[in-house]
Amino acid sequence: MNYFKPFNSYIELEKMKLNPEGDIIIRKLSDMVNVFQDKEAVKEVLKENPIIYKVYNVQIPEESGHLQHCISIVYPGKIGNEYYMTKGHFHKIKETSEIYLTLKGKGKLVMQTPDQKVRVLDMEEGNISYIPPYWAHRTVNIGDEPLIFFGVYRGDAGHNYGIIEEKGMAVIIIEEGDKTVIKNNLAY
Amino acid sequence: MNYFKPFNSYIELEKMKLNPEGDIIIRKLSDMVNVFQDKEAVKEVLKENPIIYKVYNVQIPEESGHLQHCISIVYPGKIGNEYYMTKGHFHKIKETSEIYLTLKGKGKLVMQTPDQKVRVLDMEEGNISYIPPYWAHRTVNIGDEPLIFFGVYRGDAGHNYGIIEEKGMAVIIIEEGDKTVIKNNLAY
Repeated sequence: MNYFKPFNSYIELEKMKLNPEGDIIIRKLSDMVNVFQDKEAVKEVLKENPIIYKVYNVQIPEESGHLQHCISIVYPGKIGNEYYMTKGHFHKIKETSEIYLTLKGKGKLVMQTPDQKVRVLDMEEGNISYIPPYWAHRTVNIGDEPLIFFGVYRGDAGHNYGIIEEKGMAVIIIEEGDKTVIKNNLAY
Repeated sequence: MNYFKPFNSYIELEKMKLNPEGDIIIRKLSDMVNVFQDKEAVKEVLKENPIIYKVYNVQIPEESGHLQHCISIVYPGKIGNEYYMTKGHFHKIKETSEIYLTLKGKGKLVMQTPDQKVRVLDMEEGNISYIPPYWAHRTVNIGDEPLIFFGVYRGDAGHNYGIIEEKGMAVIIIEEGDKTVIKNNLAY
């Protein structure tokens, strides 16, 4: 039998990268204009079109016996009063879970079921966040340094961005005064 | 629908524990006397019967959409010239993989297929080790501080200790002079 061979990937935390880099996803503001609420602010910040986040994906077969894994970096910043965040997604195979281990920075993990129950967990170094089957998930950087975390999910789980890309999630994470607050998404 | 709820677990690296602790497995030398080669040394060290390793398992349903995860601590030490290690296992569902992220310490990850191909990877802080489907796996602490790592595997993967408990693995990791060497297991 021809076995898939074991190998190491190395987290270079200071350089904020994975080695080898694997498949890199880079999301700039132009890739996610619908995600943020303040359309005037989006228009303004689009002139610079900053990178919002990056994902280094280890190359693994998309099969249920395998485990996808990646390092994600959400940069610090805000569009209006709304923090930089990932696009957010369900898994294509909805009944699959995901695990995040936060390595650096400070964030919120926003999760939502298909019938719109919402949970928000804190992300800080050493926190293991369990995203069970069926919960959509998005990460938000609420700090002033990059939020870096390790993610693992089933090999065949896949991504479904559709519904969240169209409608967003039921809550938004914003800065009010110097506080981080969770508010209902009025546009939802 | 009744969704399984998201939650955090916290790695307390200084205290070498998970919070909440979950299901703790503690393996003392008396739980794994057959693992080590030097039977005289085993007999001697059994008088003290030290803890060889500990695993903090987060409590997760044993279903294929879920992900088991745990923090393992292999203590530093030797039985004769053979380093402390875990018992080692295949998964009950052999075609499931596992991922280790080393958090602290220095180790070797010994892997073996059912037809006895062997691979050994280095474990050091920031190393992500991918143990693909079908490979049995054992971790060996070759340093002088605890080896601590985070592990993730499919919810229903299960453990099969049988064959390795009986026969060991095809290689052993020992100290010779002040060097760590990988040798064929003559008792295999």
